[in-house]
Amino acid sequence: MDEIKIIDVKASIFSDNDREANELRNVLKKSGTFLMNLMSSPGSGKTTTLKALVPYLKGMRWSVMEADIDSEVDTRTMRQAGVETIQLHTGGMCHLDAEMTRQGLKEVGSDKYELVILENVGNLVCPAEFDTGAVKNVVILSVPEGDDKPLKYPLMFEKCDLLIVNKIDVMSCFDFDFDQLKENAALRNPEIEVIPVSAKTGEGMDRVAEWLFNEMKEWGKGE
Amino acid sequence: MDEIKIIDVKASIFSDNDREANELRNVLKKSGTFLMNLMSSPGSGKTTTLKALVPYLKGMRWSVMEADIDSEVDTRTMRQAGVETIQLHTGGMCHLDAEMTRQGLKEVGSDKYELVILENVGNLVCPAEFDTGAVKNVVILSVPEGDDKPLKYPLMFEKCDLLIVNKIDVMSCFDFDFDQLKENAALRNPEIEVIPVSAKTGEGMDRVAEWLFNEMKEWGKGE
Repeated sequence: MDEIKIIDVKASIFSDNDREANELRNVLKKSGTFLMNLMSSPGSGKTTTLKALVPYLKGMRWSVMEADIDSEVDTRTMRQAGVETIQLHTGGMCHLDAEMTRQGLKEVGSDKYELVILENVGNLVCPAEFDTGAVKNVVILSVPEGDDKPLKYPLMFEKCDLLIVNKIDVMSCFDFDFDQLKENAALRNPEIEVIPVSAKTGEGMDRVAEWLFNEMKEWGKGE
Repeated sequence: MDEIKIIDVKASIFSDNDREANELRNVLKKSGTFLMNLMSSPGSGKTTTLKALVPYLKGMRWSVMEADIDSEVDTRTMRQAGVETIQLHTGGMCHLDAEMTRQGLKEVGSDKYELVILENVGNLVCPAEFDTGAVKNVVILSVPEGDDKPLKYPLMFEKCDLLIVNKIDVMSCFDFDFDQLKENAALRNPEIEVIPVSAKTGEGMDRVAEWLFNEMKEWGKGE
């Protein structure tokens, strides 16, 4: 196992995160790099979902940035799955802003890739407040967390384009109403797509891959 | 069902949260009110754990403050369980500070109670950064979240006195190593107590109640 270099990213000293995020999107557009921002609570299965995507992304030039407050557990996992991955540490911060994302992309050498996935810090609140420069935002909610989460954490569901409902293989162990979840999510964001998966068994991952390919294609066509 | 009044709490305009937290602890000490701060990720089972504590707290004068960004789902649940509960809204903020807690306690009329439990915003990062004025801090980690969380979210485990490991009834559905979790938690905080429970079935809740009674007794004796 090669040694994992830790990239310590620093929040922007400027106040205009939205402007920085738009600039970053322009830069990514020029190199044809699609940036996807993946968010969720701790333990919802962000890394396991990325691992389950690996077989669908064969032949694609892609890379992952793992953001954590501490540890390099997830980078180790992704590298074992054969994915080029770097580890960002946020110095205690609960989210990534556009400047931190830019620092990570520079380290990655993002212009080499068609797709870079940012796995954000596990947190259903703060990451939603900061545009990272991503083309699309995706949230994972896992079945054990409960179907009421869009009611309590509205901004995350407002900001995301896709809601992946993970751990459906353990649905029978929990009081989880999938239709109620869809209803709660639609209250926050009528446009949000919802795909149920089990990252563990692989069920539903074909639909996630299909969603991603479509979004990449649409974005490639765009002005 | 009586109407739920929403208390909008505002963050302190002063910078010295630690001083405000200490002052609040002094005030609570005078009225003999033990404040416990309960934290976890979204969906780890804070409210369900509090509900499971109800039978053990019969005869005690106690009250709950539910903090959320939005909704009053949890307050409704606790009131249905017969517990005096108020709902705090944080105006989008990801945590409570001492001043927000003080506003809540004032609304509760905390000097009437021996015990007030603050259910913090569901977030494993930011709430750990702010002393609320509580005598003891408790974190819940649920089995589906995984045993590696103390490695990724160090501060929460450093700051807490008790780690409740919830949802042990579904242990067999997940790759969760309880001994590994204890080891990871001890790395962050060798003093932390760890109690496995199922808030759903009630298993282990007697130990949580016993821990709480002991802490309240010790605190009552203290200078």
